[in-house]
Amino acid sequence: MPRVSQDHLDARRRQILDGSRVCFARHGYEGATVRRLEEATGLSRGAIFHHFRDKESLFLALAEDDAVRMADVVAEQGLVQVMRDLLAGRSEHPADWLGTRLEVSRRLRTDPEFRGRWAERSQQLTTATRERLERQREAGNLRDDVDVDVLTAFLELVLEGLVSHLAMGLPGDDLGPVLDLVEETVRRHRPGAGHEVPGTARTVRPGE
Amino acid sequence: MPRVSQDHLDARRRQILDGSRVCFARHGYEGATVRRLEEATGLSRGAIFHHFRDKESLFLALAEDDAVRMADVVAEQGLVQVMRDLLAGRSEHPADWLGTRLEVSRRLRTDPEFRGRWAERSQQLTTATRERLERQREAGNLRDDVDVDVLTAFLELVLEGLVSHLAMGLPGDDLGPVLDLVEETVRRHRPGAGHEVPGTARTVRPGE
Repeated sequence: MPRVSQDHLDARRRQILDGSRVCFARHGYEGATVRRLEEATGLSRGAIFHHFRDKESLFLALAEDDAVRMADVVAEQGLVQVMRDLLAGRSEHPADWLGTRLEVSRRLRTDPEFRGRWAERSQQLTTATRERLERQREAGNLRDDVDVDVLTAFLELVLEGLVSHLAMGLPGDDLGPVLDLVEETVRRHRPGAGHEVPGTARTVRPGE
Repeated sequence: MPRVSQDHLDARRRQILDGSRVCFARHGYEGATVRRLEEATGLSRGAIFHHFRDKESLFLALAEDDAVRMADVVAEQGLVQVMRDLLAGRSEHPADWLGTRLEVSRRLRTDPEFRGRWAERSQQLTTATRERLERQREAGNLRDDVDVDVLTAFLELVLEGLVSHLAMGLPGDDLGPVLDLVEETVRRHRPGAGHEVPGTARTVRPGE
């Protein structure tokens, strides 16, 4: 019998991840039973857990997927763009999935090993954000009176707020100008030139 | 038999709220069974549900309590102070309770009636925040190039992020300077005078 090809393994892994993402989003972490994961992926439990040690590992692989995709957007366009995509429903993270991410909060709080594994994944996003901000600072686009680590933590805190907001099914229609303000907060305000408040039509002079 | 006095009713209601807050915090919304609520309050289910129609009403009464207390702090000191209190563990909202608030996110998302009842309560906090900002604007302490509604939504989004962050058991040690930045973002930057970035020792000229 020929050995299973790497391509085949990768495709199978992808099939499991895509199906279980839908399953977790629909039923929540606890509600995503093995039977439901089988139905959603179209594969047997044997096949699923051949690729992933257990449900926790499967869930964390999805969180890692998120972090990688977000980090890609961050590298090119910054964390505020990640937020704009979430707000516009353009990302692959609908409210149901964001909600499932929130539902594991008790687990994150009470299970240090789980928290450690989760933190490892989300670290990628922090790193991508910090690197992007450092490049922006070198290019003179970033305010230089606040530490990059503080700006990174600020953007991440707003992202956490947005995830929570959308996961609770609260309306996001009025949050565009808020993200403009967030973006403006990390930007350099050029002396004399005035700075434009993005998303509004007016130009504001520093100190106005 | 004498009628039960209002004071007695109020004290009993308080006893139920205090006990069930601890119970919800420890076991989560679903885990707070009627038996556990009885143990935590020291009262029978009959007594508990004489005061509150059902578990949902009890939980929403606690959310309303939160909103009232936060609104009081907001009126005097602003929403950023609410966040500082959360961060310092000075509020009566430990991470466990914040986590339980997050756990109802699925319910909030999928049950419009529950979302409506929750929104009614949290509206108080929004109103208090907007009123405080309007007073600050009249006093000349607020930036006037961004709408008060946008500033209100900005502060609330950061609060949601902080609640989520703490509920997940993530460290808050490095968030003090982030809250300074948030506060500075809504403040008026006086022309020529330079503005101080709170929490740092230096004074920054506008546009620096």
